[in-house]
Amino acid sequence: MDLNERLNHVFYPRTIAVIGASAAPGKLGHACVASLLEAGFRGRIYPVNPSANEVLGLTAYPSVGAVPGEIDLALIVLPARLTVAAAEECAARGVSATIVISSGFKEVGTEAGLGLQSKLRDIASRSGMIVIGPNTMGVVNPRVNLVASFQSTLTVARAGNVAVATQSGGMCIHTVHALTNHNMGISKAIGLGNRCALDFDDIVTYFLDDDETRVIVLYLEGLQQPRRLMKVVRDGVSRKPVVVLKGGREEASNRATLSHTGALAGRYPLYKAAFTQSGMITANNTTELVDIAKALTLQPPAAGGRVAIFCVQAGLGIVAADRCRELGLKLADFSPTTKKQLRQLIPPLNAIDNPVDVAWKSNYFNDSHAILKTVMGDDGVDTVAIAAIFWEANMPLMRAAIEIAREYSKPITVCLDSPGGTADHWINALEEGNIPTYPTPERAATGLASLVRYGQVLRC
Amino acid sequence: MDLNERLNHVFYPRTIAVIGASAAPGKLGHACVASLLEAGFRGRIYPVNPSANEVLGLTAYPSVGAVPGEIDLALIVLPARLTVAAAEECAARGVSATIVISSGFKEVGTEAGLGLQSKLRDIASRSGMIVIGPNTMGVVNPRVNLVASFQSTLTVARAGNVAVATQSGGMCIHTVHALTNHNMGISKAIGLGNRCALDFDDIVTYFLDDDETRVIVLYLEGLQQPRRLMKVVRDGVSRKPVVVLKGGREEASNRATLSHTGALAGRYPLYKAAFTQSGMITANNTTELVDIAKALTLQPPAAGGRVAIFCVQAGLGIVAADRCRELGLKLADFSPTTKKQLRQLIPPLNAIDNPVDVAWKSNYFNDSHAILKTVMGDDGVDTVAIAAIFWEANMPLMRAAIEIAREYSKPITVCLDSPGGTADHWINALEEGNIPTYPTPERAATGLASLVRYGQVLRC
Repeated sequence: MDLNERLNHVFYPRTIAVIGASAAPGKLGHACVASLLEAGFRGRIYPVNPSANEVLGLTAYPSVGAVPGEIDLALIVLPARLTVAAAEECAARGVSATIVISSGFKEVGTEAGLGLQSKLRDIASRSGMIVIGPNTMGVVNPRVNLVASFQSTLTVARAGNVAVATQSGGMCIHTVHALTNHNMGISKAIGLGNRCALDFDDIVTYFLDDDETRVIVLYLEGLQQPRRLMKVVRDGVSRKPVVVLKGGREEASNRATLSHTGALAGRYPLYKAAFTQSGMITANNTTELVDIAKALTLQPPAAGGRVAIFCVQAGLGIVAADRCRELGLKLADFSPTTKKQLRQLIPPLNAIDNPVDVAWKSNYFNDSHAILKTVMGDDGVDTVAIAAIFWEANMPLMRAAIEIAREYSKPITVCLDSPGGTADHWINALEEGNIPTYPTPERAATGLASLVRYGQVLRC
Repeated sequence: MDLNERLNHVFYPRTIAVIGASAAPGKLGHACVASLLEAGFRGRIYPVNPSANEVLGLTAYPSVGAVPGEIDLALIVLPARLTVAAAEECAARGVSATIVISSGFKEVGTEAGLGLQSKLRDIASRSGMIVIGPNTMGVVNPRVNLVASFQSTLTVARAGNVAVATQSGGMCIHTVHALTNHNMGISKAIGLGNRCALDFDDIVTYFLDDDETRVIVLYLEGLQQPRRLMKVVRDGVSRKPVVVLKGGREEASNRATLSHTGALAGRYPLYKAAFTQSGMITANNTTELVDIAKALTLQPPAAGGRVAIFCVQAGLGIVAADRCRELGLKLADFSPTTKKQLRQLIPPLNAIDNPVDVAWKSNYFNDSHAILKTVMGDDGVDTVAIAAIFWEANMPLMRAAIEIAREYSKPITVCLDSPGGTADHWINALEEGNIPTYPTPERAATGLASLVRYGQVLRC
């Protein structure tokens, strides 16, 4: 059984043991069982605790050995000093995979912590049992209602196409929340923690092969063997895009990352160069990570970096143009034919240069459609960004965008600004039409730039 | 009557005439009356239209002259060529102020457009009547239920302390929406449009004197006489902060800004230097504009740039630290006393360096309070950022933050990440305690940096 097959036991377990399950609310071992139940996990859950008969209504077992039947996945939620014995027991019992939630390993920087961690690694390599962590928040797979974590808010995650792997558990939770808040679902999420036996290259290999994953998103602080990940990405990035945010970019943060998951963060420029060479798309912050994932999930890569911008309010078009240029995109020069056609379609008060000011025509579907089609058909235009304030009356432009997106393979992103949830209906309609929608013009430009970048990666 | 007194007629009108009011839905002149009604404006509204007897249930008048009683504010929503006569009539009728919504002036770049605009300017200077625009979206003042604009979504604006003035109407609407979405209210908002007779220096002077305004937010594309605004800001910025976003920062966007509101955007580095010298706080994008306004509205300026970061999940602390350093802040070095005290308060597995990892203590109010107090009391710490994932159990830390914020004058910002509206209760509690709250660690850092920057401005 290769690693990918074994990882299926992590993400599609039939049975889960929670070692250190507790009946006492407030304990992590209680929260883990609660999350599994709250998410509606349909397999068997076996709480393991020598001094409890039941946990949250489930029969508890005194030891891993006492659990009846096979265990696909075990969560270890014990004090660090007890984890090695528990992992040994799991391996002996034939458990396929364990997630070591417990902390107190390499990240504390002591001999004892290092020693415990290397024992976990030895167990993994000896037995073939997958060991995730230690010091991790766990894994999530909404398709099978799996939240194997103490963090119950992860039950909000919807099934989608973004795979998330992070070094930090907090950043995994944050990324899942943020994707959810931005109308996206995840295929899988995993906190790798200290990565004693399962590292980024392993999980990226798995996600590259995973049919439910369209985009891979990584948050990492440092890598012991960067070349392994770079090779996996270089070999696989033509199949799906890999987006990365690195924490500990600034020298002085490194002390913190060292004590976090036990890896020196290293010099960012070197990392960034390596990321870029391997074909990854780098994000500068958590917002970009989400915005880029959204664009790459929904839209095709761009054939080039020449952007046409449509706006219903000129100011938003100017702001979008600023951001496009900041990101290295070029405002497309329209052909004389395009200009001539636009002059016929757009009232004399509006701008027919790029950005195109669609105002007064945005409330007519046919006009909006003709304007978009004219520009989409221009060979000098590779991609399109649309920026508008929500106003029910000018939504025919959005309907036209949905139509046009189906007709052309040139990527589109949209800024649809609105207060409260007033434009949710339109945002949903756009995204069901595979058009990623953002609350600001700059964020729509960030999404577009990642489609241009992925196009470059594919042509390399 | 000085300009500030006359501007009170714009923001607190007792009577409003809508010249070009229309009974036909879809027309701007219809939308303007509808917005006034929808917002619940309590004064008199006089639709003016020679061929209508009523508009939306209100008696219509054939001309400005036929309107009974005084007119504080007139909205002109006519084709450009008819605006000059309408403005003349308003001046003759003794109207205090007009908002020229109509476009077709300097921004179209024709002789005719320029001519019409200079005629409007002449009327304003001859009569003393305030003329806003032309080519503007109007004004908003939630305290008197005033939405004098075609954009009905502006009725969502809540009364608050941020004053907004923009060159672009779209950016005014966007900023009001965004502030609302981020739990903030506005004191007033105004689209200045082509600024034929009322410019940024006038409105900033007014906002500096306005008791309901705590922070002034500007979006501009270019200035004919930058020195006038710079002088007003330099003289007044010690009373309240002025935040600015410039559109048309990139050279090639300038053509668009020229055709937008008739002003060449100019070279950004020159503008930025001038902004900084006059004591403005510059934003790089619309998200920063909102994040900075939020921090400055709720928190005091910082005495210096040494930041302490608290996190409940180490990854979020690392990301916050990266952003702080990117923004020129320094991670504070704690005194030996602080470190000693932290060592007693925090379990050995957690980091007591900066960022401080509060995990496992965040669910105890007394411990969280003691940890925050220890660091707040350190003379080497000027400001504090807290970054946490929402989890009901670790909200005692947020309660402690609210308490601490009351005891110290050192500014605090918080990242409280959460899915959907799950943390709204806590976000509201924090913000009622004057602690600005953000969805990502980086945005909390951006808010904090603006408090440091405003502190510098005040000490200059």
